[in-house]
Amino acid sequence: MPQLRVHGFTISLDGFGAGVNQRRDAPFGDGVEGLHDWMFATRTARAAHGLDGGEEGLDDDFVARGETGIGATIIGRNMFGPIRGPWEDHAWTGWWGDNPPFHHDVFVLTHHLRPSFGLEGGTTFHFVDDGPEAVLRRAFEAADGQDVRLGGGAATIQQFLRAGLVDEMHVVIAPIMIGAGERLFDNLDGALERYECVEMVSSKAVTHARLTRRAAATDLAGPAGRARPGPK
Amino acid sequence: MPQLRVHGFTISLDGFGAGVNQRRDAPFGDGVEGLHDWMFATRTARAAHGLDGGEEGLDDDFVARGETGIGATIIGRNMFGPIRGPWEDHAWTGWWGDNPPFHHDVFVLTHHLRPSFGLEGGTTFHFVDDGPEAVLRRAFEAADGQDVRLGGGAATIQQFLRAGLVDEMHVVIAPIMIGAGERLFDNLDGALERYECVEMVSSKAVTHARLTRRAAATDLAGPAGRARPGPK
Repeated sequence: MPQLRVHGFTISLDGFGAGVNQRRDAPFGDGVEGLHDWMFATRTARAAHGLDGGEEGLDDDFVARGETGIGATIIGRNMFGPIRGPWEDHAWTGWWGDNPPFHHDVFVLTHHLRPSFGLEGGTTFHFVDDGPEAVLRRAFEAADGQDVRLGGGAATIQQFLRAGLVDEMHVVIAPIMIGAGERLFDNLDGALERYECVEMVSSKAVTHARLTRRAAATDLAGPAGRARPGPK
Repeated sequence: MPQLRVHGFTISLDGFGAGVNQRRDAPFGDGVEGLHDWMFATRTARAAHGLDGGEEGLDDDFVARGETGIGATIIGRNMFGPIRGPWEDHAWTGWWGDNPPFHHDVFVLTHHLRPSFGLEGGTTFHFVDDGPEAVLRRAFEAADGQDVRLGGGAATIQQFLRAGLVDEMHVVIAPIMIGAGERLFDNLDGALERYECVEMVSSKAVTHARLTRRAAATDLAGPAGRARPGPK
């Protein structure tokens, strides 16, 4: 059965996935220097940007795992861009240039809809204003039997965790302090009780933690016990 | 120059040092199962409780470092006990029984004073209702040239971090989620900007992070730049 997976979501030691003041020249806001260095140093991430070389090993293995078996992606609007409120025009096409690294359908959660559009390399952005269950259903359809990856930001992940829809989550802790911004583990209303940390390991650069649903989660009452949307 | 050091302060993956509802039979509150298992498994911690055996290696090295060169300890009232408000009597003498593991002077921050008292093994508890600078000055005097260890809880550490008085902090991340309670990295008003993470390593059980003051911190304006209380 296809899964909804979070990969490589990186937080600071003090728990923030982004700083304050996200803007065009600072996609993750203030105080985040070094937050994603571990990722861009890996061979897999460099290859995705058309670069040779890079590190192999633990960090690279985790990055590669996040690229494997994924047929669609869901992201929040802030991960798509820095623009807030209604679209003045459709000039903004994401942070990633002409050939984004997704190469499949990407569903952008927003209250401000705009037409779908495709870019080079097979990435198509769709704009959706539905609840998490409905968005996930569309993403599973687009993924056509493969898994769906859930991107950020923190508020988007929290929304899917509260709805009990996340199957697996790989969180990375970077050895920096951001001080203020968006915490990943916040606004969860007890949703983490359904998950357990099944792995925690460190490379020279960062610590990786992998969370999965508890085996008993499907027996619980509440949102986690609800029937999940299937691929069809 | 003697230092103020935090050692072994353990937080969950979601950032909590304690759960809610601290009480006599749950010194760290609800949902903290396994939080300190890593510590009690070490040879040094077992020896401090009169037990043989235990694990050696990374976790044990970190526990031992926290016992070395310490001449006095500062703790918050909740680390001393579960009683809130005025003392009805003086029957409560701490969580640790007749022979607490400190073996030196321990300063308990509280608005409700009571007389100092000593227990077996050289531990004397003092109750102080002063600001962090004044308490640290007394603790340095008692430590007589050695360092002072700062215990928890989270609010106590935050108070000393905000005052710019912590020299080194060893934080441990355990692979559990607590969900709600007292976050370590909260209410800090930017105090973490003066610190950097100089080491992050994992054992099989937990991740250790070590924070020290930035080299430039003494040049900054604000509380960190203030003269620190010396040992005399």
